[in-house]
Amino acid sequence: MDAPRIDAAQVIADLRELARLTGDERGAQRLCFGETWREARAFLRSRLADIGIEGSDVEVDAAGNLIARLPGADRGAPALAVGSHIDSVPDGGWLDGALGVMAALGVLRAWSQAGSPPPRDIVLIDFADEEGARFGRSLFGSSAMAGHLDPAEVAGARDAAGTTIEEALAENDLSLEGAARAHEDGLLDTLGAYLELHIEQGPALEAEGISCSAVSGCAGVERHRLTFRGQASHAGTTPMDLRRDAGLAAAETALAVERVARAHHGVGTTGTLDLEPGVITALAGRAELGVDLRHAEAEPLADMISEALTAAATIADERRCVFGGEPVWRIAPTRFDDQLVARAAAVVATAGGRAEPMVSGALHDAAEVASRVPVAMIFVASRDGISHAAEEDSSEADLTAGVEAFGALAAEVLGRAPG
Amino acid sequence: MDAPRIDAAQVIADLRELARLTGDERGAQRLCFGETWREARAFLRSRLADIGIEGSDVEVDAAGNLIARLPGADRGAPALAVGSHIDSVPDGGWLDGALGVMAALGVLRAWSQAGSPPPRDIVLIDFADEEGARFGRSLFGSSAMAGHLDPAEVAGARDAAGTTIEEALAENDLSLEGAARAHEDGLLDTLGAYLELHIEQGPALEAEGISCSAVSGCAGVERHRLTFRGQASHAGTTPMDLRRDAGLAAAETALAVERVARAHHGVGTTGTLDLEPGVITALAGRAELGVDLRHAEAEPLADMISEALTAAATIADERRCVFGGEPVWRIAPTRFDDQLVARAAAVVATAGGRAEPMVSGALHDAAEVASRVPVAMIFVASRDGISHAAEEDSSEADLTAGVEAFGALAAEVLGRAPG
Repeated sequence: MDAPRIDAAQVIADLRELARLTGDERGAQRLCFGETWREARAFLRSRLADIGIEGSDVEVDAAGNLIARLPGADRGAPALAVGSHIDSVPDGGWLDGALGVMAALGVLRAWSQAGSPPPRDIVLIDFADEEGARFGRSLFGSSAMAGHLDPAEVAGARDAAGTTIEEALAENDLSLEGAARAHEDGLLDTLGAYLELHIEQGPALEAEGISCSAVSGCAGVERHRLTFRGQASHAGTTPMDLRRDAGLAAAETALAVERVARAHHGVGTTGTLDLEPGVITALAGRAELGVDLRHAEAEPLADMISEALTAAATIADERRCVFGGEPVWRIAPTRFDDQLVARAAAVVATAGGRAEPMVSGALHDAAEVASRVPVAMIFVASRDGISHAAEEDSSEADLTAGVEAFGALAAEVLGRAPG
Repeated sequence: MDAPRIDAAQVIADLRELARLTGDERGAQRLCFGETWREARAFLRSRLADIGIEGSDVEVDAAGNLIARLPGADRGAPALAVGSHIDSVPDGGWLDGALGVMAALGVLRAWSQAGSPPPRDIVLIDFADEEGARFGRSLFGSSAMAGHLDPAEVAGARDAAGTTIEEALAENDLSLEGAARAHEDGLLDTLGAYLELHIEQGPALEAEGISCSAVSGCAGVERHRLTFRGQASHAGTTPMDLRRDAGLAAAETALAVERVARAHHGVGTTGTLDLEPGVITALAGRAELGVDLRHAEAEPLADMISEALTAAATIADERRCVFGGEPVWRIAPTRFDDQLVARAAAVVATAGGRAEPMVSGALHDAAEVASRVPVAMIFVASRDGISHAAEEDSSEADLTAGVEAFGALAAEVLGRAPG
C-alpha cells in the first residue's frame, strides 16, 4: 500500500479557521496559558475528534504539552512524533507554530483515513509556551519534556498584567514543580524521530526564490548585556574633550558587533540600547546594550563573543568609561540528525525546494527534542521575512509545497513512499 | 563713601539653610509652583524682611516672578537688577539658581546696612520656573517678563503627576494668559542693567584651576529629533546583508554628531536614543535620536546642524532606512552687553578669576533679559562639572571669590568702588 497523501488544502483551511477563531485585526492572540490559547486547543481537539482521535488518545502532560496519538500496527515500535506549538506572541502571526501543529494534524488525518493503521504510532505534540512571551522563558514545554527546565529559573516571573507563572499554570491545573518533572513520563524515550514544519521567519528563502528547505539544526546563541558607565553631564556646558559619554561608547560598540558578525558570517544584533538619564539635554552617564550573536558552529560563535567583548572594553577605555558585560543567555549550536536531515533534504528537493539544508537562526522546540531524539525540520519561505507580527505570511504555493514535503517526509520515516 | 562689601560667608550660610529647608538626601526639591518652592520663597521673604525689605517692596508679577526692591537715592534713575531663580529640578543641586538669588540678597543686605541708600534702586528678581522641569518650558518667568512667552506653546502641558500648567499656576493665584502679559508692567524698561551670578554647571573652570569667570553670552542651540525607519526583524533569522537596521543608522549618526561638533569647536550631544521594538531578539525597525548642538556663534552653529542632518540622511540611505528630522527647539546665540561684560571681566580678574570672559553653554534667565536690558553674568567653578544632581557643589573658596566679585561688580555698576 502507498502511504496516504497529506491534504495541504485542508491544512491551510484549518490554519485560516484557527486564525479567525483566535486572532483579531492586530494578529494572533494565542498567548500561552490564557483563554484564547485554550480556545485554540479546543479547536485542535475538535479537529482531532473529527478524525476519531479523542478520549485517552489525547493527553496533556505535566508541563501542559498536548499529546495526541494515532495508534499504529506495531504498538511496541518507536513512534513518529510530529508537532510544533499553537501558542503565539501577542499580535503574532497566523503561521508561527500553528503551521507545524496543523501540518501534524494533517499527517494524522491522512493516516487515520487510510483504511489501515500506520506501521507505528504517530504522535502529535503541541508544545506549551514555546514563545515565552508572557514569562520570558522560551521553549517551556519542550525543555520540560527534555528534562531541561529549572523551576528556580522562572519561579515568580510575572506577565505584563502582573500574573505570576505559578498562577497562570494553576489556571490550567498545572504547577511549576510538576512541569519540571514532565520528562519523567518517559515520552521521548518512546519516539523514533521527531519532525517539525515551521515558517522560516526570515528572508533568506524568499530572497532565493525557493519555497521550502530542510533544516540541519539551530544556531547557537550568545546573548549578553553590556553596560558602560561614564559621567552624565550637561549637553551645553561639558566640552567635548572632557566628556565620558557612555551612550557613544555603546553606539560605537553596536557598530563593532555588526562588523564582528559580518567577519564570521554569523549574525549579530543590538536590539536594545538604553541611556541614562535619557534626556536630550544631557550626555548619558550610563548605557546598556543588549547583544545577541548567533552562529551555526560553536567555534566561530566563541570567537564572535570574545571579539565583541574585547571591542567593547577597548571602546569603553578610549572613552574613559567603565565597561561591564554579563551573559543573559547562551545555548550551544544544535545539530539535528544527519541522516534524517538528509532524507528531509531529498524530499524537499523533489518538491522543488532547496537541495542544501539550511541552519535555523531562530530556536525551536525541535532543538530541545534533538537532545534526546533524532530530529529534522522543514522551513517554508516567509513573505518579506516578517514574523511575530500580523503581517506574517507565506504564499499559498509555498505553504502547499512545504506541507506536502512534510507529509512525504513523515511517510518516508514511517517506511512508506507517499501515494 | 565706599560701597559696602558683600558678606560672602552670610550668602553661603543662607544657601546652606535653604538647602536644609527645601532639600533631602536626594537633593534640592524646589520644583517650581509646588509646595517646597513656596517654602523656599517664604525663606527668601523672611530674609528680605530681616533687612527691612517687605510689604509693598516685595511683589510677585503676573508670571510668578518675585521682585524685591531696595529704594535708591535717585528713584527716577534706571535701577540695577540682580537675581536668578530659586526653583530647582527634582533631586537637584543646592547652588543652581539659588546661588544667584542668595548673592542678590547679599547685595541688597550690604547696601541696606550701609547707612545711606544706594545711588539708585536695586531690584532683586527671583525668576519663576527657570528650569521648566515640570512642564518642559524653560525660562518661563524671564521669557514672560521679556514678552517672549507664547501661551499656546505650553497650554495643557502636564507634569509627571498629571497636573496641568494651568492648574499649577492657579494654585499660585496665577494664570497662563496673565503670565503672557507680564511684560506689560514695564519693569524691564526701568532697569539700567541686570547682573546674575551662577555656577558654571560644567567642568571647564575647574579644569583650568580657576574660581570664577565673566560670561559674555549664551551659546545658540539647535535641538532636533531625528527618526530612522527600517524594518524590524528577527535577530536570528535575518542575514546581515538583508537588514534595514534603524538602530545602527541612529548609532552611526550619533558618532557623526560628535565628529561635527568637534570639527566646529562647538558641542554636540545625543542624549536620547529610542529603539523599536526595543527587544534583544529583534533588530530595530525604528529609531529616534535626540540631538542637541550648541555654539557661541550663529554661523558655525548653522553649519553644524546642516552637516549633522546631511550625515544622518547619507547614513540612513546607506542602510536602506528612511530618514526624517524635525527641529524640537532652537535659539540663536545671545551676546551680553560688551561694556558690562568687560567690567565684569576686570572685576573677576582682580578677584583672581579668568581674565577672558567665557561663553555659557547652558541657557539662563539672563539670556531673556539681555533682549531688553544690558546684561552680564559671572560663573563660579563647579566641582566635577556636575549639576542637576545632589552631588552638585563648588568649593567654599570658589563660592567666596565668585560672590565677592559679584558684589564688587554690582558696586561698580552702581558707580561706587567697593569698600
